[in-house]
Amino acid sequence: MSEKVIIKEVAARDGLQAQPQHLTVEQRIALLAALADAGVPELEIGSFVSPKAVPQMAGTDEIAANLPVADLAYSALVPNMKGYELAVRAGIRSHAIALAATEEMNQNNIRKSLEDTFVMGEEILDRAATEGVAIHAYLAVAFECPYEGAVSEALVLDQVARLMAHKPARLVIADTIGAANPAAVQSMMQKLVDRYGPELLGCHFHDTRAMGLANVYAALLAGVRQFDASAGGLGGCPFAPGAKGNVATEDVAMLCESIGYTTDLNMPKLLDAVALLSEMIGAPQGGRAHTWLSKQCA
Amino acid sequence: MSEKVIIKEVAARDGLQAQPQHLTVEQRIALLAALADAGVPELEIGSFVSPKAVPQMAGTDEIAANLPVADLAYSALVPNMKGYELAVRAGIRSHAIALAATEEMNQNNIRKSLEDTFVMGEEILDRAATEGVAIHAYLAVAFECPYEGAVSEALVLDQVARLMAHKPARLVIADTIGAANPAAVQSMMQKLVDRYGPELLGCHFHDTRAMGLANVYAALLAGVRQFDASAGGLGGCPFAPGAKGNVATEDVAMLCESIGYTTDLNMPKLLDAVALLSEMIGAPQGGRAHTWLSKQCA
Repeated sequence: MSEKVIIKEVAARDGLQAQPQHLTVEQRIALLAALADAGVPELEIGSFVSPKAVPQMAGTDEIAANLPVADLAYSALVPNMKGYELAVRAGIRSHAIALAATEEMNQNNIRKSLEDTFVMGEEILDRAATEGVAIHAYLAVAFECPYEGAVSEALVLDQVARLMAHKPARLVIADTIGAANPAAVQSMMQKLVDRYGPELLGCHFHDTRAMGLANVYAALLAGVRQFDASAGGLGGCPFAPGAKGNVATEDVAMLCESIGYTTDLNMPKLLDAVALLSEMIGAPQGGRAHTWLSKQCA
Repeated sequence: MSEKVIIKEVAARDGLQAQPQHLTVEQRIALLAALADAGVPELEIGSFVSPKAVPQMAGTDEIAANLPVADLAYSALVPNMKGYELAVRAGIRSHAIALAATEEMNQNNIRKSLEDTFVMGEEILDRAATEGVAIHAYLAVAFECPYEGAVSEALVLDQVARLMAHKPARLVIADTIGAANPAAVQSMMQKLVDRYGPELLGCHFHDTRAMGLANVYAALLAGVRQFDASAGGLGGCPFAPGAKGNVATEDVAMLCESIGYTTDLNMPKLLDAVALLSEMIGAPQGGRAHTWLSKQCA
């Protein structure tokens, strides 16, 4: 039996929230259905954030009430305790919270200090533990911050230790701006896997510099077996053609399968979901290997 | 001092030979001048092959007589002993020879048996040794053959041993069709580096499946420090948009520099060479990270 790699599909949240085109709730449910049909084991459905701040995510509660299939690990991003409560009320029992590793990123992104952000995260983690809600805690800008530059590995290791004390279901190291390199990824993830084991860890890469697959390979070498990815690589800035968003689900699946892991993804159906996404967005989506994969599945 | 990675720039040979547009000798000299100006330490100028078979490479002798700068490691591909003699007559003292690892690839590509190809290669290597000509011996389709499928690592290791006995200046493992995966690359290159040391080895990757940079990272982990690459990723099939050719010089340089190696390449000048190439070819060229690199160098 080959070892399994779990891909958490985030196009419907991290991908769509960056698009100028706002998909309807019906479109987003259709997209989730297509992704579920392609066999993704974990599926982020949206975020419980203010629709004024992120109109692309409005109606995530409606989506939660109309999930395409029953037996799938659905999750949603919650920005704070209010979002946590809204998500729970909507029936979502697996949440993502994001804490940036630097002071400036927290200040600029959510107008909170780093310390306040971590205290909020700990409160959510502690409450979730008592209520049986699983939390994936994301450490954002864990390699480089757009305001502060390079982020030290030692700082990240300390922050992870602080969060691990509050028992997240998963701690995800996030290269939010796509600035990580594979040597830094391998070094950090090896230390984390050695300390906490692979079950508690995940990686979230953006493919801005085309090093996404090299970073996934580096993380695999370090023992990481859980990765976020976005169908079609959705999430890039729509005003910079060629600037990719999240590492593409189809690219990650191809890489993992090529070196002997199983992902349980159905590639032709995944490419169908990418085609649906392209149609909805009104612009061609697709990972780095889109041409090759399309030919294979034709 | 950081460790050095040597990039052998092959756009003017492996890239151009696949293009339907035939550049003039003057254009090719201008391209080589732009690449030399960008600081590439090794530069393949063309091939001494029949102009009937590969008209794109006609006039490589004229190019050899008009090289842009003196102190650069120029080389040319020679398909056989006649090509070897033509290259020597043209003043080129560093040649590439390519031997496919499978029977079918040799039969289909050059209508010779695998054994005849290897005997020819050994004759060229032996003669070059007596005449002070450096040979880079390429083992083509070293991971997968378009006719025979997966190529066994044991077979390649044996073939490398056979060729090493004839003292090539470098033995280059070539993923001719872009089918390698990083785990296979790391496994094979680790064994070869352990046996022969990094100075005698190189890797040549195509980026068909977008795993080019992951493969470069895997080879770097194994100790490889010499890579072929092609400015702009030139070399893909011109009829399949998005199908990349050789791994792009700018992508490889970016990866290497990001993890602390030096390449001595000047990125803005390299992107100028890619722009010149785009203009000559009449279609935009560029590696996977083109958008990001262009913004960095703007």
